[in-house]
Amino acid sequence: MDDPALTEARKVLAAEWFAALRDRLCAAFEAIEDAHDGPGEPGRFERKPWTREGGGGGVMAIMRGRVFEKVGVNVSTVHGTFSEQFRKQMPGAAEDPRFWASGVSLVAHMRSPLVPAAHINTRHIVTTLGWFGGGADLNPSHPRPDDTRDFHAALEAACEAYQPGCYAEYKRWADEYFFIPHRGHARGEGGIFFDDLASGDWERDFAFTQGVGTAFLDVFPRLVRRRMAEPWTEAMRARQLEHRGRYAEFNLVYDRGTKFGLMTGGNPEAVLMSLPPVATWQ
Amino acid sequence: MDDPALTEARKVLAAEWFAALRDRLCAAFEAIEDAHDGPGEPGRFERKPWTREGGGGGVMAIMRGRVFEKVGVNVSTVHGTFSEQFRKQMPGAAEDPRFWASGVSLVAHMRSPLVPAAHINTRHIVTTLGWFGGGADLNPSHPRPDDTRDFHAALEAACEAYQPGCYAEYKRWADEYFFIPHRGHARGEGGIFFDDLASGDWERDFAFTQGVGTAFLDVFPRLVRRRMAEPWTEAMRARQLEHRGRYAEFNLVYDRGTKFGLMTGGNPEAVLMSLPPVATWQ
Repeated sequence: MDDPALTEARKVLAAEWFAALRDRLCAAFEAIEDAHDGPGEPGRFERKPWTREGGGGGVMAIMRGRVFEKVGVNVSTVHGTFSEQFRKQMPGAAEDPRFWASGVSLVAHMRSPLVPAAHINTRHIVTTLGWFGGGADLNPSHPRPDDTRDFHAALEAACEAYQPGCYAEYKRWADEYFFIPHRGHARGEGGIFFDDLASGDWERDFAFTQGVGTAFLDVFPRLVRRRMAEPWTEAMRARQLEHRGRYAEFNLVYDRGTKFGLMTGGNPEAVLMSLPPVATWQ
Repeated sequence: MDDPALTEARKVLAAEWFAALRDRLCAAFEAIEDAHDGPGEPGRFERKPWTREGGGGGVMAIMRGRVFEKVGVNVSTVHGTFSEQFRKQMPGAAEDPRFWASGVSLVAHMRSPLVPAAHINTRHIVTTLGWFGGGADLNPSHPRPDDTRDFHAALEAACEAYQPGCYAEYKRWADEYFFIPHRGHARGEGGIFFDDLASGDWERDFAFTQGVGTAFLDVFPRLVRRRMAEPWTEAMRARQLEHRGRYAEFNLVYDRGTKFGLMTGGNPEAVLMSLPPVATWQ
């Protein structure tokens, strides 16, 4: 590791970025609520701070609007000491079990079945080592080739600016990760997934993490605006709710962040903010 | 173990009982559908056989009616060879990994938020050893003291007929099992839970397992008939759907049968038949 003062400064930079990205995402989504030419009032985010026993806390931001049926953006910055169990699993924690972690995670469930659901999360974790991780994926119940193409193109550009060839690697990782084994199919249209990112050049890794966030901020609102005025049927809505059932299955059975949060006594409201507002199992 | 012919005869007896209990439960529920004085057509169970790769199979029976929004009764009789991992966990499987298992499981999600949801499952498993297991619990979104009392009284009578004092033990086991740690509360009003039941007197253990099924068959339809005509509000319905979200969380994150089924390549449609028809996370 670098010297302690530098590590501390970098923690501040990372945590500030995650909060800034949250602000920009919330603003972009509220602008969409305003721009929508439909019934109902434009939604607004409500923020709710929470503290974590053991150190740190976060802010949940949730909006229930007319385009976004339920969108949650959670920023958290926590610190503490890993349990015996996690000590063995987390890089650099065997020597010293203290950790610091900051990140932003977002899940958007949309009213229209023709507007894709989406997810992004990025994080910075510091033990005796420090690394970045994250992922983003698109979850339409009614996939459209151009939406999938544009979403992947934005992430690919962020990846290739960092390290030529890494998009293919991170896309493959997402294909493996965002998969529902018991159903035998992907949970959506994929995206990217990366973890343990520590190239030795912190600024460069941080810039990539920022680039992933910025790419999502650029592309996802465009997809929402592209689709939000398209008329849809009750049959499409029914299919969307079934698709959300699969999403809930994935998050509750397999998602690492969810399991980590539930098993380590995280705030269940924040951990499960990703669950759909309504889901069906017909 | 007893001699092989006797073991085989007992397997047949147990499997036949589980199917017979299913038939009686389905008949009782269809009679409730007929008796209900409400709009819509009385529901009828649809049966769907399935086979298991590796040996055996089962029959799913599902009814979507006007009292029962979604009720699934699954009977299965399977056999095969435990994986290395399960061999160590399952009694009597270290010496010989072959197993046989038969059981019935039922989950009822009701239209009216004032009619309690409920669950029962009982099973017989044979390795080089043989034992019974099962459980039943009541899951009202709007608990009513007399329903809870009557449900427990029926199970208590079945338990006390088997072994004085065992109701307290099996109730405590249910209180521990039907608990949602990340929410810090029970998933419902409890019931009983038992496993590895092998007293040395197979007939007696089988009679108890039958008694639990018969107790459920007696009490649950009575509770449904008691409540099904009570008027309810949209606010009650909303609370029911949130309660079902907790139920889905429990089944997907903690339930042993669900995890066992998903991880061993069970038929996902049968394994996840327990999930609610609609659930919300507001």
